[in-house]
Amino acid sequence: MKATSVKDFDAYREAMNEKLLAAPNNKIIKRIFNVDTNAYMPGALDSKTKEMLGLVASMVLKCDDCIYYHLEKCYQNDVSTEELLEIFGVANLVGGTIVIPHTRRAMEFWENLHKEKK
Amino acid sequence: MKATSVKDFDAYREAMNEKLLAAPNNKIIKRIFNVDTNAYMPGALDSKTKEMLGLVASMVLKCDDCIYYHLEKCYQNDVSTEELLEIFGVANLVGGTIVIPHTRRAMEFWENLHKEKK
Amino acid sequence: MKATSVKDFDAYREAMNEKLLAAPNNKIIKRIFNVDTNAYMPGALDSKTKEMLGLVASMVLKCDDCIYYHLEKCYQNDVSTEELLEIFGVANLVGGTIVIPHTRRAMEFWENLHKEKK
Amino acid sequence: MKATSVKDFDAYREAMNEKLLAAPNNKIIKRIFNVDTNAYMPGALDSKTKEMLGLVASMVLKCDDCIYYHLEKCYQNDVSTEELLEIFGVANLVGGTIVIPHTRRAMEFWENLHKEKK
Amino acid sequence: MKATSVKDFDAYREAMNEKLLAAPNNKIIKRIFNVDTNAYMPGALDSKTKEMLGLVASMVLKCDDCIYYHLEKCYQNDVSTEELLEIFGVANLVGGTIVIPHTRRAMEFWENLHKEKK
Amino acid sequence: MKATSVKDFDAYREAMNEKLLAAPNNKIIKRIFNVDTNAYMPGALDSKTKEMLGLVASMVLKCDDCIYYHLEKCYQNDVSTEELLEIFGVANLVGGTIVIPHTRRAMEFWENLHKEKK
Repeated sequence: MKATSVKDFDAYREAMNEKLLAAPNNKIIKRIFNVDTNAYMPGALDSKTKEMLGLVASMVLKCDDCIYYHLEKCYQNDVSTEELLEIFGVANLVGGTIVIPHTRRAMEFWENLHKEKK
Repeated sequence: MKATSVKDFDAYREAMNEKLLAAPNNKIIKRIFNVDTNAYMPGALDSKTKEMLGLVASMVLKCDDCIYYHLEKCYQNDVSTEELLEIFGVANLVGGTIVIPHTRRAMEFWENLHKEKK
Repeated sequence: MKATSVKDFDAYREAMNEKLLAAPNNKIIKRIFNVDTNAYMPGALDSKTKEMLGLVASMVLKCDDCIYYHLEKCYQNDVSTEELLEIFGVANLVGGTIVIPHTRRAMEFWENLHKEKK
Repeated sequence: MKATSVKDFDAYREAMNEKLLAAPNNKIIKRIFNVDTNAYMPGALDSKTKEMLGLVASMVLKCDDCIYYHLEKCYQNDVSTEELLEIFGVANLVGGTIVIPHTRRAMEFWENLHKEKK
Repeated sequence: MKATSVKDFDAYREAMNEKLLAAPNNKIIKRIFNVDTNAYMPGALDSKTKEMLGLVASMVLKCDDCIYYHLEKCYQNDVSTEELLEIFGVANLVGGTIVIPHTRRAMEFWENLHKEKK
Repeated sequence: MKATSVKDFDAYREAMNEKLLAAPNNKIIKRIFNVDTNAYMPGALDSKTKEMLGLVASMVLKCDDCIYYHLEKCYQNDVSTEELLEIFGVANLVGGTIVIPHTRRAMEFWENLHKEKK
């Protein structure tokens, strides 16, 4: 499986999040979305560090869409490719080679971010 | 990644299950399929409750195809969208935000079920 | 590893939750605890069903302490041993034999609940 | 956490399995136990290979009790320490360093097997 | 989701691995790739056994691309379809029915291997 | 289950690592240990950041011993309790409430570190 384009990823994510936020009886989902926004706000740790934490957690849990989301946030927080590769290192070491296919797609999405967001 | 249509999901699932059930030396796989059918039969708990259990288990284990399967069964057992959203709530709370992308696709598939199965 | 007594489980859980709720800068943890309380309140689904959902999710994710917690709630919501065994069935089927050791401890803790809570 | 003795592990496993097999309404659990026995019988692959498969699967899924069980079976099937270390290698590579603590306990249990079973 | 063709899988895997191996500051990733190559070399266990271990580990960890990779290696090491089905049995038993969708795609990829590699 | 003391954790970890490093035919295990040491060395990211990455990854993968190890390293790298609580926040949000029991033990171990290491 290849990575998606940033544009397609963003569009689907946004469209479906809207559906979830418009669905009936979605109080718990809404609150989780809310906590999610707050958890990455700068505090004792800055946003860049928190997004890197979110990225490595997403990688070892092998969730492509979560990885794409945090890659986008890392890109916005000026994570360098040199730093990214060290996050990839920790993720593949802690999570094992099972993380490699996600790392391949992460690398492709990271390149897409530089192409599409320029 | 987007959700598949119900039709495509059902067709691929059926075609490949047939191949597995026709494969040589598949005794264990066949028995597991058998237990699988029995586990969701009404007993002390009714089928609707059991399918909801199967759905939440599939969500926290982040298996899209398993989610689609149990969504289809939940749909057949008259789970309401209000009930579904509370299952989504438990799944995303217990399993974490890593479940969100699967919830997005689950929402899309749930809509597909209403469109395609009508 | 054997299951703990209900008394020991409750005491440690309570003592450490208090420490987490008294810790500095714990806003996100507090909110998650809050959502956790709300997610199992009766709504479109009753509390008994939700606790059974929480239990099966905890079993397939192989978290003993989460299993003990939801067993206690299931006990309070009058889940019968016959119903419990069907939840065990779904959990071991969906999650695999890897869930068996947790099922053994769950069975012991379920017995402890009947002994200690009487 | 240290590994348990072989004697304690076997005793608890047996006692609780008996309880599960004597519990009311346990049809699905019983069938899963049945398939479990059959899956490791010699077939196209011999028992030794199958137990090694069961061991590596248990290690990457980080289930200590499952690891102990398959170590005992590997011991009975004359897996050598040299072979065991290569299984450890694959498990820690595929599953990541998260498997190391389980490998430490596996090593201790393996030694216990040689001491206690002699 | 269907399985990919062998050709597409190999091409993407190779292209992205090259990018990772050409990326700046990739020392840890490179070393993990290196250990990965070594872990499946014949030693106390032969390559066929090791590839079967890698396959079952990939199946219970539900990583399609890892499964495809080890299927290809199993094919090269003359694993028979009869043997494969027993590996499928262990994987679905230990890992649960959550492994079934991956088994369906594994079966399709296995057929693709026989068609495309002939 | 309660957390262990720092002293007991360190002693068992060291004793069993020595056994693994003295075991026959342990080439792959040794190399993984080696890469493990290198991955947390300062590079594009400093050691403190890398240990926080290792901690969050260990938390969402629910490995107590890995959590204790990285807590010890975080303690040595002057991570503050305020920072720690934000890591706990990300881990419990991304990984779900299934991480709470590990967070309880992490909090206890963190206190043990301050008591025992002073």
